[in-house]
Amino acid sequence: MTPDLDALVDGLERGERRALARLLTVVEDGSPEQLRHVVAALHPRAGTARVLGISGSPGVGKSTLTDAVATQLRAAGRTVAILAVDPSSPFTGGALLGDRIRMQGHHTDAGVFIRSMASRGHLGGLSFATPQAVLVLDAAGFDDIIIETVGVGQSEVEIAATADTTVIALAPGMGDGVQAAKAGILEVADVFVINKADAGGAGRLQSELQGMLEMGHATAEVTDEPGWWPPILRTVAVKAEGITELVAALDAHTGFLASHGLGAARRRARTRHLVRELALESTRRTFARLSEGEDGLLEALAERVERRDLDPYRAADELLAASRLAAS
Amino acid sequence: MTPDLDALVDGLERGERRALARLLTVVEDGSPEQLRHVVAALHPRAGTARVLGISGSPGVGKSTLTDAVATQLRAAGRTVAILAVDPSSPFTGGALLGDRIRMQGHHTDAGVFIRSMASRGHLGGLSFATPQAVLVLDAAGFDDIIIETVGVGQSEVEIAATADTTVIALAPGMGDGVQAAKAGILEVADVFVINKADAGGAGRLQSELQGMLEMGHATAEVTDEPGWWPPILRTVAVKAEGITELVAALDAHTGFLASHGLGAARRRARTRHLVRELALESTRRTFARLSEGEDGLLEALAERVERRDLDPYRAADELLAASRLAAS
Repeated sequence: MTPDLDALVDGLERGERRALARLLTVVEDGSPEQLRHVVAALHPRAGTARVLGISGSPGVGKSTLTDAVATQLRAAGRTVAILAVDPSSPFTGGALLGDRIRMQGHHTDAGVFIRSMASRGHLGGLSFATPQAVLVLDAAGFDDIIIETVGVGQSEVEIAATADTTVIALAPGMGDGVQAAKAGILEVADVFVINKADAGGAGRLQSELQGMLEMGHATAEVTDEPGWWPPILRTVAVKAEGITELVAALDAHTGFLASHGLGAARRRARTRHLVRELALESTRRTFARLSEGEDGLLEALAERVERRDLDPYRAADELLAASRLAAS
Repeated sequence: MTPDLDALVDGLERGERRALARLLTVVEDGSPEQLRHVVAALHPRAGTARVLGISGSPGVGKSTLTDAVATQLRAAGRTVAILAVDPSSPFTGGALLGDRIRMQGHHTDAGVFIRSMASRGHLGGLSFATPQAVLVLDAAGFDDIIIETVGVGQSEVEIAATADTTVIALAPGMGDGVQAAKAGILEVADVFVINKADAGGAGRLQSELQGMLEMGHATAEVTDEPGWWPPILRTVAVKAEGITELVAALDAHTGFLASHGLGAARRRARTRHLVRELALESTRRTFARLSEGEDGLLEALAERVERRDLDPYRAADELLAASRLAAS
């Protein structure tokens, strides 16, 4: 059944949760034409939400931390959407089950919305779908949208970096401090959180992180905006300890961006990212269309490459030339 | 100084380590033209190596495990190259330091080569550079190439999945078993390793993993080749325990692929991946060229999107149309 997209957009406008949920499903699973329709309709309505990113390795307690931040933001009268971006395989059902468990903590509160999004093995999936899901949540009128990404790999950090304010969460005992320096997290973090700070090793982790930050600044390779030094906060999210201070740090960073005119630059970067991802996804789709079936173009090119009849770059040239013809 | 690429290719042919190292640097840092030249020259010489992938979260002891596997393969008379693919930020120097420390374990042995590769914040960087580095190592004549990726995020799993045989390493106590089900690792793993198996919780982790595998098979969503059930092995890599069994499992999978004619299919998939990534990277470069400077095309489009003069999909259409014109 094709959803009536315009009816869903109207429903979103009226604050209907069901319409919101179904539009997010369109973003995840819809046809390119449906997505295009939804984005075109919602784009004029979006542009007011604050986007926060929370990223960290599995096991640091990110979900608990995110929920605690949401509770604190609600207490301050703000509405909150959580988008848990998760490279899960589709079959575990873990994401949806997790949503249900997490919603119980907020289930009497219409001002909190939680949604997980999995990559479903989609090439370029998350960095393609996430900004569009953010657009839907933004158009739905939430004050704060928290993008929670599992992991600190390349794609997760890329996604987190599109937020207005990016939090990197760490925990003691999750591999040595050197891990913290990886994945480019020093460059993208606006706020560091050491969660599970009541466990042993929190002090050592903080010192290591501090040292790496100082080294990064000394060599000018941490090139954040002038005047903002990422604070390192300690939390125990399961006991809601340190959350008030964390939310204060988020608000301080929001104020910093506004007073230095940097918020607009971040939004502009997010828009550039979205436009580029849409164009790349369109290119991927063209490649896929040219490659359908056993005698598809990509398969034929790969066969010639393996016969050493063609080198991989020339094969890529042929794929590009064919896709230009197909698109024009 | 521009390296004399043909001299390096000749050096590689003669087994010179310095030429190998410099060609890998070209893959990481060279201009598109240099890369194209190197790949065209080496492609006819490659195609014989076995490619193994080892992936896992930080802290599971992947490097130690990889080194132990390399030592065991060497004992069987095979030459081994390790490509440690790492989304590090460039400034830590961690990767290179790590290489030096790791090389000490093999420093008297010319049959082992270790190289780390970082993403350097490059969009699509690792999945673009890794297959080309594998091509260089393949042309250098190594019997086995081990791609070791840090993390089990989308991009890491994508990279590991291009191997002939993919190992997913886990360890007890690294977050609950549900994490293991994430990131699509059940679908891509040919062999599971529970490292640090002398720590508490190894049995529980094994049971959980076994249960998830059975569920995946029952729902037909683990769609591996018929006839191969991924074994779950236990190792203590620091004591070299279980490594003989692990290498035997790798060889068994190699034999399975060969006897079922599936090796060729995996190679074909790897070639398709390489050709598509080269074409996408070329597209990204065209976008970047069109977007240089403050009045670049992407910036101008983003500005119009934010003015709500253009929706993001139409902006992407304009970017694609301009890139087709620029390329033709």
